[in-house]
Amino acid sequence: MNQVDESGRLRHLLTLEGLPRETLLHLLDHAQAIVEDGADRSLLAGTAVCTLFFEPSTRTRLSFQRAVQRLGGDVLNFDAATSSTTKGETARDTLKNVEAMGVRGFVVRHPQDGAVAELAGDVDTGTALVNAGDGRHAHPTQGLLDMLTLRQVKGGNFQGLKFLIVGDVKHSRVARSDLHALRTLGAGEIRICAPDALLPQGGTLAGCTVTQDFDAALDGVDAVMMLRLQRERMEEGLVASLDDYHRDYGLSATRLRRAAADAVVLHPGPMNRGVEIDDDVADGRQSLILKQVSNGVAVRMAVLAALLGRS
Amino acid sequence: MNQVDESGRLRHLLTLEGLPRETLLHLLDHAQAIVEDGADRSLLAGTAVCTLFFEPSTRTRLSFQRAVQRLGGDVLNFDAATSSTTKGETARDTLKNVEAMGVRGFVVRHPQDGAVAELAGDVDTGTALVNAGDGRHAHPTQGLLDMLTLRQVKGGNFQGLKFLIVGDVKHSRVARSDLHALRTLGAGEIRICAPDALLPQGGTLAGCTVTQDFDAALDGVDAVMMLRLQRERMEEGLVASLDDYHRDYGLSATRLRRAAADAVVLHPGPMNRGVEIDDDVADGRQSLILKQVSNGVAVRMAVLAALLGRS
Amino acid sequence: MNQVDESGRLRHLLTLEGLPRETLLHLLDHAQAIVEDGADRSLLAGTAVCTLFFEPSTRTRLSFQRAVQRLGGDVLNFDAATSSTTKGETARDTLKNVEAMGVRGFVVRHPQDGAVAELAGDVDTGTALVNAGDGRHAHPTQGLLDMLTLRQVKGGNFQGLKFLIVGDVKHSRVARSDLHALRTLGAGEIRICAPDALLPQGGTLAGCTVTQDFDAALDGVDAVMMLRLQRERMEEGLVASLDDYHRDYGLSATRLRRAAADAVVLHPGPMNRGVEIDDDVADGRQSLILKQVSNGVAVRMAVLAALLGRS
Repeated sequence: MNQVDESGRLRHLLTLEGLPRETLLHLLDHAQAIVEDGADRSLLAGTAVCTLFFEPSTRTRLSFQRAVQRLGGDVLNFDAATSSTTKGETARDTLKNVEAMGVRGFVVRHPQDGAVAELAGDVDTGTALVNAGDGRHAHPTQGLLDMLTLRQVKGGNFQGLKFLIVGDVKHSRVARSDLHALRTLGAGEIRICAPDALLPQGGTLAGCTVTQDFDAALDGVDAVMMLRLQRERMEEGLVASLDDYHRDYGLSATRLRRAAADAVVLHPGPMNRGVEIDDDVADGRQSLILKQVSNGVAVRMAVLAALLGRS
Repeated sequence: MNQVDESGRLRHLLTLEGLPRETLLHLLDHAQAIVEDGADRSLLAGTAVCTLFFEPSTRTRLSFQRAVQRLGGDVLNFDAATSSTTKGETARDTLKNVEAMGVRGFVVRHPQDGAVAELAGDVDTGTALVNAGDGRHAHPTQGLLDMLTLRQVKGGNFQGLKFLIVGDVKHSRVARSDLHALRTLGAGEIRICAPDALLPQGGTLAGCTVTQDFDAALDGVDAVMMLRLQRERMEEGLVASLDDYHRDYGLSATRLRRAAADAVVLHPGPMNRGVEIDDDVADGRQSLILKQVSNGVAVRMAVLAALLGRS
Repeated sequence: MNQVDESGRLRHLLTLEGLPRETLLHLLDHAQAIVEDGADRSLLAGTAVCTLFFEPSTRTRLSFQRAVQRLGGDVLNFDAATSSTTKGETARDTLKNVEAMGVRGFVVRHPQDGAVAELAGDVDTGTALVNAGDGRHAHPTQGLLDMLTLRQVKGGNFQGLKFLIVGDVKHSRVARSDLHALRTLGAGEIRICAPDALLPQGGTLAGCTVTQDFDAALDGVDAVMMLRLQRERMEEGLVASLDDYHRDYGLSATRLRRAAADAVVLHPGPMNRGVEIDDDVADGRQSLILKQVSNGVAVRMAVLAALLGRS
């Protein structure tokens, strides 16, 4: 499924991998304009957007809902993860049905890698999908909001930036989308720090410096993205204990001093305080975590406007 | 509960049984106008409509929500099936409470036959109920959308039509509402095909030709409505196996060739692909299944406008 | 957390305890004006209000939703009680996250006493919280709607009123908020009737007449508030049986004759018919129960307008 059509227009937003640099920058610029000046509440007037979640996520859903509201659109919610009426129905049939109700935009979350792109191949011209997270594959609006947040604080020169991602990169669609965006924007150095069991196979980390030594990894970095540790990693035996994880991969204020003096901390939320991040870091002056959330609404507005807005 | 008042105005929509032919045709005409020209978003401005579901149904709820939005109304959702706060409260008290909040329209689904009509007897003048499915009894907006879909494709001359309903007619409010509408519109011939265990008792099928031979039933029909087979029919022992059911009552492309060359296929959704309907029929050129869904929003808009719209 | 700022403006609505009499009266006056004349749908235009419920409550949530809709605001719902994504996240982090999405108003329900006031200490200037019930502590909009309802029927002279509260006062935030409001408005006499096991400790009932004799308590009262009996009180051994409770503390039409001839009956809902209240009382001419529900929307509109409305 090609997310950009022949004329260069964004048709869906499925992944940041391969998204043209100009398209990515245009989305960031529009989101920044929305942060500064707001947006026109008539852009999506009369347009329905459905949040179609095959996996629960209250916060991402809320952020998209707010984005649709601020553009004047109508929100419909389909919680396919808990809907008993869809038992035995394929995701495609569910989507095609809601599409037939006159819905033009879909914000889709799905537990399987690539599922959203596959669904995008089945919709009519004029219907747009936004991938709100598919398996470990991609979470492009998270990648965009992280870049917008970085750019606001560090400026547009990504070449000079040292960026560190810490934690469960293996299972993280956030990490993958960040990596795609950072490469497109030409980040100077990307470091990865995670235990072996939480490192992905294959080419995901091409060009990154990988280490298990968190202290060394932090040395002089400008930005550190702390990934959420899902508790099921322990049940799966990939992590021994929360205490051990915190000792080796938790970000404390002391540890953060190894980074650049003006280094910033990001986290996709929700946080496990005391596991991957300490309170004084999460709530400290270097934390951009709530700014990420704010920017998330603006980024999603920019994406929906690009896909569905009246031009 | 009389759903039409002395002056002939629709006060509730509870069933298609006994609904005057002119009222039914007026609703279809208005829905058709909405399909062609859209509707005025001020018709329900300031009016609240509550979807009050004592039985879950995501898709019907979404269709009504979209209908309210497109008319400019406000939607409130009350999922009485899962609400813990209503434990021990009667359906009547729940309804009267939401009515007291200033809600004028209710879209009610309930597991018991006749429950919605009973509730309609308890509301104030000016409050309107739409039956969104009560037990096996009625699902009038489904009946209307099926008729609208048929009329678009086959024209308004129902006298010339041979219509076949296949499957679990016994437990189907969709079948009952279709039968009521088809009789009112004077359908030429109505055939029913179902195993004995899934045939209703009493006068439901008066005037219909009933058979267990699906191949014979299909012969020359103009339209076939395939009902969803609920999996609990097997647990109840009414159906031996999905394979047997598919062999005897599943619609394949081969079988469909027995119908008229321009025959059309309907299904109320969600489909059990490979059970009552095969993929190549569901997605084939004779399928009207997604058109039914589209028409559903228009029909519900017409009904809500008739009940609640400013005139 | 001080809910009124230095300039006397309401910043949050957390409890009626200590709320200045003028502020309380102003809210009642505005709610009354809304009942009579409606409200301007532009008051909250562009403003988002989130119902953030850490404990389920469909009806209170609906009432607030309708209030926001009638003021032209946007509603977001966060059902923190069932959200799996917030597992391990603090209530504060959840709130701060939604606040970062640009949400200015929060309607918060929480199972713990004082939790909403604590959360109010953590939000930014310009963000307002409404306590929609916290543990046994307070449910201020319920207190306000009870006072509005009383005032409509009995007039503004609370000094002349004898008010009786019956039932599980111990666990009731409704009773506490009513008591706060009645004291501020200077109610002539407040009586409490409940079994010992359902009476609160400490100063909650200061100035009230307390009895276990329901018949005596009813003698000559002008208004009686019947509290809902939660069924878990039996499991906890605080109530022997529903039958016993009904015999001793259930309001029947016969019993009600002991009250003043024009006495009125209130109930916060949902009712346990046949337990704390009989059908002929609940539905009788002295019942204000549905009027309470109607007034609830108006009171919540007045509160939200005071907290968030453009002035």
